[in-house]
Amino acid sequence: MRAAGMTAVHATVAYHENFRQLADNLIDWQRRFRRHRRLIFHAATAADLDRAAADQRTAIFLGTQTPAPLEADIGLVQILHTLGIRFIQLTYNNQSLLAGGCGEEHDSGLTRFGKQIIAEMNRVGIVIDLSHAGERSLHQAIDASTRPIAVTHANPRDWHDCPRNLSPAAIAALVQSGGMLGLSLYPHHLRGGSECTLAQFCQMAAQTARRYGAHAIGIGSDLCQDQPDSVVQWMRDGRWRDPATAAPATFPPPLPWFKSNRDFPTIAQGLRQAGLTQPETDAVMGGNWHRFLHQALPPADPDTP
Amino acid sequence: MRAAGMTAVHATVAYHENFRQLADNLIDWQRRFRRHRRLIFHAATAADLDRAAADQRTAIFLGTQTPAPLEADIGLVQILHTLGIRFIQLTYNNQSLLAGGCGEEHDSGLTRFGKQIIAEMNRVGIVIDLSHAGERSLHQAIDASTRPIAVTHANPRDWHDCPRNLSPAAIAALVQSGGMLGLSLYPHHLRGGSECTLAQFCQMAAQTARRYGAHAIGIGSDLCQDQPDSVVQWMRDGRWRDPATAAPATFPPPLPWFKSNRDFPTIAQGLRQAGLTQPETDAVMGGNWHRFLHQALPPADPDTP
Repeated sequence: MRAAGMTAVHATVAYHENFRQLADNLIDWQRRFRRHRRLIFHAATAADLDRAAADQRTAIFLGTQTPAPLEADIGLVQILHTLGIRFIQLTYNNQSLLAGGCGEEHDSGLTRFGKQIIAEMNRVGIVIDLSHAGERSLHQAIDASTRPIAVTHANPRDWHDCPRNLSPAAIAALVQSGGMLGLSLYPHHLRGGSECTLAQFCQMAAQTARRYGAHAIGIGSDLCQDQPDSVVQWMRDGRWRDPATAAPATFPPPLPWFKSNRDFPTIAQGLRQAGLTQPETDAVMGGNWHRFLHQALPPADPDTP
Repeated sequence: MRAAGMTAVHATVAYHENFRQLADNLIDWQRRFRRHRRLIFHAATAADLDRAAADQRTAIFLGTQTPAPLEADIGLVQILHTLGIRFIQLTYNNQSLLAGGCGEEHDSGLTRFGKQIIAEMNRVGIVIDLSHAGERSLHQAIDASTRPIAVTHANPRDWHDCPRNLSPAAIAALVQSGGMLGLSLYPHHLRGGSECTLAQFCQMAAQTARRYGAHAIGIGSDLCQDQPDSVVQWMRDGRWRDPATAAPATFPPPLPWFKSNRDFPTIAQGLRQAGLTQPETDAVMGGNWHRFLHQALPPADPDTP
């Protein structure tokens, strides 16, 4: 990350973990932050982006990809905020207690509990992430939230058709509401999968920027660098099915031009070659997330610690 | 508390609760802090004492009376600190994984794990509280800790002989190390129990100040205002014995002159009448805790959040 000059990264700290297991994962992160304090730190506010740039360190924002650590308890939203969680996905492919997932046949839409949790996330300043949601849930979350929301890692479905990518209507609604779309570099979200070229990805990014506005597009790499397949199995199966009953979970082969954090500057070059101006490229590579986090993270309630 | 002009209070947020149950209790406190924001706030640093005085609010420092919320996991010390816990008792009457309790026949002294936890509490800035410890454990904790420790609520045993009160040697060692003794107003710790008079209590306080130094004495009221007997049963029995096998747990009758927080000014008057100077009285009523918390709370590790 330092070699690539990364100012900030959003790292997943939990998938299907319960609250106690989230604490275990946070303990691992606390030790990383202590051990590698010259390189990374636990980011809590948008101002930490500027601090990271000034310090030549990388600000790590932590988030959960499912609401499982909330354990159906709205009170834990503020507890997670206090522990430094700044992104929570309302659902991860499956139906959750909050919303419908993109992998379900029918999308429940936002649930009664989901509306409560959105209000509480709005209050304390945690980003509502709908990356793995169904489309109805996405629209309803946009409507319910008083603050802009994010789809941190997905691509346009009309470029590559898969349930994880977004329809034109979904992207339009997201952008209209002030939200952010982080373009994904995970092979399953790309036209041609692991064969997708840098030029193809960047052409898609440039087209998306032209169509919806370069101000609403960022990078949400979904990079799973050096992670064993046990991680993707935990993501996919969690505790909701016996892994033996599903296809073996394996990571797809990495893109030859995006194997590690060192390759981020390559994306910036590719965006310029695809026709984005330098200011547009800077915005997509980080400036838009910077602006968004300044809007999304300050607690609405001044008494939130 | 406001009627008495209390600047700060240390409130117990957990006894035998595990980590998840501690979170439940913290959620209750978060709601109190929101609902009563004009009166109280969750204190995190010694500077909050000055903020409370300036705001005419009461700073609430939260602590646990047993190490149960740590669940034998040293990593949870920093998690508890992040959640705003500022005092932890190493043991509560019984043997814990950390130290021997004052109710045990034999005091194990500080355990291997106890030494690790003390070092971690020293690092992050959580006050080590030995109020319910055995004497050997108290001496060993004083020696092991690089920062001053506290016995937040106990009295001299040579004034009232009970396992919860401290021997002269224990008080001397505590004071010698820069630690603090919070004098208790819980009837079981008082000569004559609920019959103890204000004058008797304040004479004891004045004698203790003269003998060991007025700089090391504070108030640790152990006030259980408006708490039902189920609370004292949970304190005493936790999950370690069936309450039906023990004597029924009931709170003793309150002192007529100390029934509520409104009665704190009465103590100050009593201390003056018992011969303490006004500066000594001010120190015992809060100034000493102010100084102690400025020493005990700043994280030793600058990277601790």
